[in-house]
Amino acid sequence: MNTFGKNFRCTTFGESHGKAIGVVIDGCPPGITLTEETIQPAMDRRRPGTGPLVSQREETDRVEILSGVFEGSTTGAPICILIRNVDVRSGDYDDMREVFRPGHADVSYFTKYGIRDHRGGGRSSGRETAARVAAGAVAAHCLASVGIRVEGRLAEAGGITGPEGMHKAIADARDAQDSVGGIIEIVARDCPPGLGDPVFAKMGAEIAAAMMGIGGVKGVEIGEGFRAARMRGSEHNDAMRSTGFSTNHAGGMLGGITTGSDILVRIAVKPTPSVGKVQYTVDMHGNETEIRIRGRHDPCIAVRIVPVAEAMLSLVLMDRLLEQLKYDGFRAKLHTEED
Amino acid sequence: MNTFGKNFRCTTFGESHGKAIGVVIDGCPPGITLTEETIQPAMDRRRPGTGPLVSQREETDRVEILSGVFEGSTTGAPICILIRNVDVRSGDYDDMREVFRPGHADVSYFTKYGIRDHRGGGRSSGRETAARVAAGAVAAHCLASVGIRVEGRLAEAGGITGPEGMHKAIADARDAQDSVGGIIEIVARDCPPGLGDPVFAKMGAEIAAAMMGIGGVKGVEIGEGFRAARMRGSEHNDAMRSTGFSTNHAGGMLGGITTGSDILVRIAVKPTPSVGKVQYTVDMHGNETEIRIRGRHDPCIAVRIVPVAEAMLSLVLMDRLLEQLKYDGFRAKLHTEED
Amino acid sequence: MNTFGKNFRCTTFGESHGKAIGVVIDGCPPGITLTEETIQPAMDRRRPGTGPLVSQREETDRVEILSGVFEGSTTGAPICILIRNVDVRSGDYDDMREVFRPGHADVSYFTKYGIRDHRGGGRSSGRETAARVAAGAVAAHCLASVGIRVEGRLAEAGGITGPEGMHKAIADARDAQDSVGGIIEIVARDCPPGLGDPVFAKMGAEIAAAMMGIGGVKGVEIGEGFRAARMRGSEHNDAMRSTGFSTNHAGGMLGGITTGSDILVRIAVKPTPSVGKVQYTVDMHGNETEIRIRGRHDPCIAVRIVPVAEAMLSLVLMDRLLEQLKYDGFRAKLHTEED
Amino acid sequence: MNTFGKNFRCTTFGESHGKAIGVVIDGCPPGITLTEETIQPAMDRRRPGTGPLVSQREETDRVEILSGVFEGSTTGAPICILIRNVDVRSGDYDDMREVFRPGHADVSYFTKYGIRDHRGGGRSSGRETAARVAAGAVAAHCLASVGIRVEGRLAEAGGITGPEGMHKAIADARDAQDSVGGIIEIVARDCPPGLGDPVFAKMGAEIAAAMMGIGGVKGVEIGEGFRAARMRGSEHNDAMRSTGFSTNHAGGMLGGITTGSDILVRIAVKPTPSVGKVQYTVDMHGNETEIRIRGRHDPCIAVRIVPVAEAMLSLVLMDRLLEQLKYDGFRAKLHTEED
Repeated sequence: MNTFGKNFRCTTFGESHGKAIGVVIDGCPPGITLTEETIQPAMDRRRPGTGPLVSQREETDRVEILSGVFEGSTTGAPICILIRNVDVRSGDYDDMREVFRPGHADVSYFTKYGIRDHRGGGRSSGRETAARVAAGAVAAHCLASVGIRVEGRLAEAGGITGPEGMHKAIADARDAQDSVGGIIEIVARDCPPGLGDPVFAKMGAEIAAAMMGIGGVKGVEIGEGFRAARMRGSEHNDAMRSTGFSTNHAGGMLGGITTGSDILVRIAVKPTPSVGKVQYTVDMHGNETEIRIRGRHDPCIAVRIVPVAEAMLSLVLMDRLLEQLKYDGFRAKLHTEED
Repeated sequence: MNTFGKNFRCTTFGESHGKAIGVVIDGCPPGITLTEETIQPAMDRRRPGTGPLVSQREETDRVEILSGVFEGSTTGAPICILIRNVDVRSGDYDDMREVFRPGHADVSYFTKYGIRDHRGGGRSSGRETAARVAAGAVAAHCLASVGIRVEGRLAEAGGITGPEGMHKAIADARDAQDSVGGIIEIVARDCPPGLGDPVFAKMGAEIAAAMMGIGGVKGVEIGEGFRAARMRGSEHNDAMRSTGFSTNHAGGMLGGITTGSDILVRIAVKPTPSVGKVQYTVDMHGNETEIRIRGRHDPCIAVRIVPVAEAMLSLVLMDRLLEQLKYDGFRAKLHTEED
Repeated sequence: MNTFGKNFRCTTFGESHGKAIGVVIDGCPPGITLTEETIQPAMDRRRPGTGPLVSQREETDRVEILSGVFEGSTTGAPICILIRNVDVRSGDYDDMREVFRPGHADVSYFTKYGIRDHRGGGRSSGRETAARVAAGAVAAHCLASVGIRVEGRLAEAGGITGPEGMHKAIADARDAQDSVGGIIEIVARDCPPGLGDPVFAKMGAEIAAAMMGIGGVKGVEIGEGFRAARMRGSEHNDAMRSTGFSTNHAGGMLGGITTGSDILVRIAVKPTPSVGKVQYTVDMHGNETEIRIRGRHDPCIAVRIVPVAEAMLSLVLMDRLLEQLKYDGFRAKLHTEED
Repeated sequence: MNTFGKNFRCTTFGESHGKAIGVVIDGCPPGITLTEETIQPAMDRRRPGTGPLVSQREETDRVEILSGVFEGSTTGAPICILIRNVDVRSGDYDDMREVFRPGHADVSYFTKYGIRDHRGGGRSSGRETAARVAAGAVAAHCLASVGIRVEGRLAEAGGITGPEGMHKAIADARDAQDSVGGIIEIVARDCPPGLGDPVFAKMGAEIAAAMMGIGGVKGVEIGEGFRAARMRGSEHNDAMRSTGFSTNHAGGMLGGITTGSDILVRIAVKPTPSVGKVQYTVDMHGNETEIRIRGRHDPCIAVRIVPVAEAMLSLVLMDRLLEQLKYDGFRAKLHTEED
């Protein structure tokens, strides 16, 4: 199940230490201007090595569009975007060939597939998210062309809010050979009302799946989220006035369907599991051992998940927009016929 | 999109004030014992009118199996379960024919479909969840037959934990013509490792979609959830010993794949939007007005969502179990062939 | 996999000798007029006992709409249509409790599910098609509302064309305790160009799956079909003039996408497998035996498949129309934004 | 909709005159030996320029596996196979920039997407099938590892059977600046009984969709196909003996489910639409004109569709095998639990 979406469908592939990673986007409308330059800025934002608090791995992440674009515009055919892996030092992982890293997917992959690919996590690596960011950039570009904007930001790191405090919390963790978690807020503005479906495919359900499908995310909130559980109905309900809603506790949706208010999403990211401190673990044969993870690791992966979360929200909104347009289109056709 | 699941697929139908609601389960394995008596107890637990803190609407919720079962066993054919609506007093809603209830889906449905079905919410009504509970009971029965158990409980209401405190918080809200939210915990025990898929269809993503697809749910957590965002890596990582994991901060999954530890889920439920207090709202023509909602309403819908959340988790696990069995089956076949 | 379609999705349920059969239609646009009277005429056309050459089983086939319609119009919610089984004489099948009928699915079902439901075929019975006809009637009604018409006819029976000859061929077979096959032609007129997708989901592929998914159908042709294999390119190509195509050898589609010409489909239906003549077979234990099938059976099931084939083509076209409208809708939105 | 399959899912991408074509296979079981050498022979069979009766275009079609394989075995992660386009002479098509080729998808694509990619057909080109052949080779390899074999052959060309006669028919057509159609037979041997689903997803329906999804295919038959329409029931039914079926008129399936007999499929391929003869057509502005297609074209595309049809049947069988294994697996688990 490496495909996301029903109308704007993204299929990702590639491992962190293989030849390349990439994505095939199927269902992108034709006639949208698109070049590699449309996508590259999002890749650069995600890239490690661009700030003091992220790992120093060199990823150039140059995207190459292989298909689906002709003379600078989408054709309606599937768009394959390829990103070659260039800085693949599997050697870093050689001493972990048989040992499972705590908090990582090593052990669950081994149980599931019967295979131990020790080279940095394979599909479970954060590297896989580069393909999502590329796809998300295309979705965001489509959305922007009809006036919808998606933005994310790190709201909390190590339990601290405010840029300076977060910076210090991350630096402290790094210096202690440890890591911290964080909270990200993503907002979609100017999203039309009526998107999302009432029962299982509620807008909140689609967003929750999208977010919890990012490695390291352990919680998702819409609007007031867990705070809503501690509010009274008279307080949580958003009053309606002729000019719109007075408040936005609901986070932009009612009954799973967008209202036109901003879509407000918050996600909890766990601390990076790769820490320098000594940890207890077992090897492939069940023997107890200790591990001390070396190499380049972000002390707070939440920092790098911001553009990934934006990408996932863009993918959901583009998918749901196309879903709704078919019914709007039928209604329009019906009325034309009736005239 | 009224279908949930890819292998164990449930399609629900029916409105709160229509003739009936129901579900078609497609993909249930053959040879499972199943009668209406297998399903009825779950329906009775969900039913309103069974406690002092729930609404007094009379729903008998008698399930009728229309297909897919022969001589007390499933046949592999789709199972249609029908529940006739018996206590349909649309009259209660007549004075809301043109007015949107705050916090309800009335307004978003109207925008989406161009239709105003004022009779108690239609598909957005909590009544729709009866069909999920019926389907969930079948899934839970299948899971139990292979040793997997799912249990939920109300962990917090109105910000209070502990049965007596929660009881009082709900009663106080009711007396104040208001309502409270709550938090539910659901656990799955003895789930085999290896379920779930690594990228988009992570076990956590499927669970998050399932939970956020329940009306009124505004937040989902796996394991430590939002607390993980405030922990350090060395603290959050679950150490592995030869006897298994020392702790279960991860909530039973790593990299989206189950580990064999208990699956731990927490969800936040908003306060019931239907409150007796006067609220500001608008009508279908955009005119500002006030509304005072009469009739029978649960002061804390979280109470009734407990069996729904159990049902949804059961549906996810049964679906993911079948997904994994095809690969286990191929591997077994391959080894047989090689011998 | 009892669901058909991606946008206009039909999930059927029910066995020939169970309580009821039915269908849930998910994805029907809102605001379409719909009552039981819209559907009933199609049911009556399919019904046995309406002519001298069909079986005399009494099926009233009264449809009941359980959901998705409010005040005579669709709401956008799933439409459940139920048809109770009334004339269920399982007794007819008692002497076949352990014997497999040649040419029937008895033996393949038993291998697949490990279950022998001897009561007239269960899901493999032609009765299942009543649910498709009901769903197809809704699709055809939607299509008609935007000007698209679907019509089928029996073109050949027992190798003979022409009403009188076909009638005689069927009567002869019946008198000989035997049965004959037939060929059905279905045409869709005034279908807009641009429907269908270029690669796997070609319009012809969707139609072929729909038709071959009807019990007893063993061949499908689009346009010239097998005759195309014996034509030269210069002869098969449809020349284009300013007024449109000069001919329609292609059957209304090029590269899997409709052209606006009539969609021409032909299907081959095998002879009814239930014949009165003595046949060699085996029982559930592998013992060789003979069987002489009694009871009411159509000497030519092709007669009754005509409305089923119309239904399936209607379902495909409605599904593909909605698919296309989302892209047309996006383009329209894009142009609006650009102005 | 560039994805085929539900369990063994292939997503293809790429245009005939773009940078590359390729496929992502999602759902391949882990632990299967796989290298580029497993796939290359199938590519070479499909390749043009390998016989006197096929076009002389130079396609090296070197496959490159980008992901999903580690140390010579599949890992369970998606397998991306890339084929760079090397002999891309768009110049050949320059004089067709504005003219629609009769019998081609040019005109239907233009209507659908609003775009005219004149460079040899884009996604509608036969080149797209190279990606299917690559994916099919992986499926066939998986099937072979559990004993299932798929084989196709050209059975008829230009209405003639027998190698020499077919050769002459094709050569005559080529010399006349024209083309001929053909008929292909594909057989699957040693396929286990019980695959396929009873209603919409009948084995025959899946095969029909797979075959009719190949460009140029206009008819599909299972078993006796259209001949069945002219047989009597007593003749068409396959008698059962203790040693199995006496005959195989049904083509290996009953009620949509495989019986263990050989699966027999026949497809009709239209004559190549690109012919040297002068043809009447229109341009993008609706003006009438004539066209004389130059360049390299196969006088009988059926020749090159043989490996494509094998690939598609392999994909269907692998997909349906995985589908069935999940239920077999559940039953096995259930019995283990009961012991």
